[in-house]
Amino acid sequence: MADTRTKLTVVKVGGKIVEEESSLKQLLENFATIEGHKVLVHGGGRSATAIATKLGIESVMVNGRRVTDAETLKVVAMVYGGLVNKTIVAKLQAMDINALGLTGADMNYMVSNKRPVGEVDYGFVGDVKAVDARLLADLIQKDIVPVLAPLTHDKKGNLLNTNADTIAGEAAKALARYFEVTLVYCFEKRGVLRDEHDDESVIPKINKQLFTKYVADGVIQGGMLPKLENAFEAIDAGVKQVIITKADAIDGKSGTLVV
Amino acid sequence: MADTRTKLTVVKVGGKIVEEESSLKQLLENFATIEGHKVLVHGGGRSATAIATKLGIESVMVNGRRVTDAETLKVVAMVYGGLVNKTIVAKLQAMDINALGLTGADMNYMVSNKRPVGEVDYGFVGDVKAVDARLLADLIQKDIVPVLAPLTHDKKGNLLNTNADTIAGEAAKALARYFEVTLVYCFEKRGVLRDEHDDESVIPKINKQLFTKYVADGVIQGGMLPKLENAFEAIDAGVKQVIITKADAIDGKSGTLVV
Repeated sequence: MADTRTKLTVVKVGGKIVEEESSLKQLLENFATIEGHKVLVHGGGRSATAIATKLGIESVMVNGRRVTDAETLKVVAMVYGGLVNKTIVAKLQAMDINALGLTGADMNYMVSNKRPVGEVDYGFVGDVKAVDARLLADLIQKDIVPVLAPLTHDKKGNLLNTNADTIAGEAAKALARYFEVTLVYCFEKRGVLRDEHDDESVIPKINKQLFTKYVADGVIQGGMLPKLENAFEAIDAGVKQVIITKADAIDGKSGTLVV
Repeated sequence: MADTRTKLTVVKVGGKIVEEESSLKQLLENFATIEGHKVLVHGGGRSATAIATKLGIESVMVNGRRVTDAETLKVVAMVYGGLVNKTIVAKLQAMDINALGLTGADMNYMVSNKRPVGEVDYGFVGDVKAVDARLLADLIQKDIVPVLAPLTHDKKGNLLNTNADTIAGEAAKALARYFEVTLVYCFEKRGVLRDEHDDESVIPKINKQLFTKYVADGVIQGGMLPKLENAFEAIDAGVKQVIITKADAIDGKSGTLVV
């Protein structure tokens, strides 16, 4: 059966791209060329670390995640929710893209549980619990372009620092009820590589069967494993396709297509 | 002719109240008791000054307004758009109030001109040019409670630092097309005072005729003059009434009623 729903592209970009003026400009110009409805999800970790340092707050990372105590939470609320998010929104508006910057607390669209204290106490870090995309979908239908900051809330009055990849995946899954969703994960490589030392060795298309084979053969390993697991999880939950690519190719015409 | 439109209360609160945890808690509890649709407009100047100082940025004020150079703009984007705004949104969500934090760039609801350089160069400070409250009104009808940060944009890619009293007045005027609007300005006194040294000398009700008389008699002077001029301007533009009161009385049952 053909999917006749309206197309929506959810693009997740890392911190570095949105934090430097020239790369942000290029990114937003590329983003503008995406046809149809779209959503932008951003990071901002480098700026958060820089501001935290200036404020005399030490940045503690465990397994690549920021330990978020009360003071660090204030920093990420400022940097992700204010500086990075609103800068992007203002720049998109100048390109006649009707952007709306959001955290999960806004319109209560994404609620998380504060991560339980295990071997590590990550502090005010959220694991997504529930997504209500109804109002978001309404606004997207009205040509609003949501710009999602990597912050959710616990519905008990606390903001929670939340991984941007997760936000993008969860938003894409919830919006798949209303749209035919393509999820684009941007990172520093041109796609999933057959040979990590050869940037030209991009695997153009991958399905679960191929994924299992590549993992068994040791072709796919390290940080690419959770990325692809998330991608297949999104597809299982109704997202049409996931593209893993470089930020200069978010039109989806290159990179690795996960189906 | 009776005004049969839906009621909307726009409450503007200063920085100090929203920047201290105990007074913010009390304010939001009072705000929650307001019946019908509502909007909260906040400041955040004290926090901006504190963060700027920690970041080694000097705060320069001229005629009570912050001179906003590029570095200071980043601070107010962080503090007003991120820290203060999103903290309020998360706390309202915990009270089952479906808040949505916005700057003027979000949904392009409020566009400003960068203030021309005169005797003073205020930098990235905005004078409101246009308000499009259609989407805002739509969301309010769906029981969303907008929380407005004192930031607008120039539609050319720049955020602009904008006086919160002005944001409240302009939003109230634009929303008066869709709702029967009461605008509540909170400040440190119980209302407009007959005798500035007597907190009990609140003028309960004032119209233009009385205002002219009080100004001529020297009863109303100083900072209260622009406040009341703004109030009458809002009423001339369709706002039903303006209440000037203390933050603990935002239910509108005390203070000075401007009609």
